[in-house]
Parts: sequence; C-alpha cells; structure tokens
Amino acid sequence: MTNDAILDAIAFDAAGLVPAIAQQHDTGEVLMLAWMNREAVAETLATGRVCYFSRSRGRLWRKGESSGQDQRLVELRVDCDGDALLLLVDQHGVACHTGRRDCFFRAARGDALAEIAAPLINPEALYGRG
Amino acid sequence: MTNDAILDAIAFDAAGLVPAIAQQHDTGEVLMLAWMNREAVAETLATGRVCYFSRSRGRLWRKGESSGQDQRLVELRVDCDGDALLLLVDQHGVACHTGRRDCFFRAARGDALAEIAAPLINPEALYGRG
Repeated sequence: MTNDAILDAIAFDAAGLVPAIAQQHDTGEVLMLAWMNREAVAETLATGRVCYFSRSRGRLWRKGESSGQDQRLVELRVDCDGDALLLLVDQHGVACHTGRRDCFFRAARGDALAEIAAPLINPEALYGRG
Repeated sequence: MTNDAILDAIAFDAAGLVPAIAQQHDTGEVLMLAWMNREAVAETLATGRVCYFSRSRGRLWRKGESSGQDQRLVELRVDCDGDALLLLVDQHGVACHTGRRDCFFRAARGDALAEIAAPLINPEALYGRG
C-alpha cells in the first residue's frame, strides 16, 4: 500500500515540515504540537506509531523512544489548506517532557501565566539523571 | 494592565510567528490551526476576540471579520517550550472557510483521504460571490 495520495495532499513548508497537533482520541485533550516531515508522516501511517521530526535534533523522533511514553495513531486528519495535521492518538502515559499529561499547562491569568497542571511523573524517572 | 509577562514567555519564530491551535472550549473540538504574531496575541488578550496573523495577506486577521464567524477567547495557554499556543475559544458558527465546523475534515482512510464532514453553511453565504 502506498500513501502517496495522502502525502501529496500535505503542504510541507519551505523546511519540509508541517505542524501536527496530537489530540487524545477519546477525551479530546490537546496533548502537544510537534512537527513532521514527509518521511515522518509516511512512517506513522505505515507503523501506527507516531513519529515526528525533531527540529532541535534534526532527525526523526519516534515519540516515546527515550521516555517510553509513546503514541499510537488512531486517525490522521489533514486541514482544508493541507498545511496542518491533526493526529488522533492514544497517548501512553504523559505527552510532555516535563512529566505532565499535556504540554499546555500554563494559562494566562490576568497579566501573567499560571501553571494549571502538575507533573504526574518525575522527568528523571522518564529520562534518567544524565 | 500589561501582558508583557505573557508575551515574553512566547517563543516567536524567525518570522515573528507562533502556531495557535483553536479548540472549542466546551466540546473539545479542534477547530483550526493558525498563526499569531506578538501584536495578534496582545490584541486577543486585550479584547477577548481572537486575532490571528494571516501569512497569505501579511496582516492581522480578526477571525470572522469577513465571514462573521468570530471566536471569543475563553483561555489562552502556552506550551512547555513557549513555541505553541492553545486557544480555548467559543466559535460562533463555523471555523472553516469552506463552511465546515472545523478545518480537519479530511481523514486518512486506507491509502487516500476521505471527507468526513460536510459544509454547514454555503461559503458563498459567508463571503459573497465576489
């Protein structure tokens, strides 16, 4: 099976990337936003395990490869202009490297940001001390 | 009231932009992904009406200014790295310029994309024929 029809519908940017929103499929929680290149989308569709492209590391990033907190793909959606993806996923454990369930744990309150969620797991337990 | 503490926590990219996810606050629907610059975030916080930066038009874009389908801000959240925003909004009508409730109406089915939602409003009724 080839996914070329899907991949060709995606408008990757000048750097070859597209933003991807990960949403927990059953609760609706928006977990994180990350980036994918064509290879990451193809691998995710082929394996059913979400693979992003890490801009900081400059390479494919199989979510959970270090932390064990992987994401199973339930459904991939493409927006009207093809320049954003919505991934419905099943998140194992926590999505955020801080140990929180999702990355959007700071909310505007008055003129400052307030933390509205606490870590569920110590990041040292996910990544070790080194 | 100044929102500098919030604005300074956002890591705008080299073009001065940050991706913003709009999610309907009560149903959890992910409506769209768009972009904001510092001025758009500041205006949104000040007015409570969501203002994006249109990359295609190169100017501020007050959501609904043409279509009447505006978004009221319920809460603005910033992610762990400061390089993505989650806007909890109350969407008036439809979010997508195609007349659909949200922009993510194409889903991968096998090796192709299938439309999983139909327009609720004729786009010509939103934008006119010209």
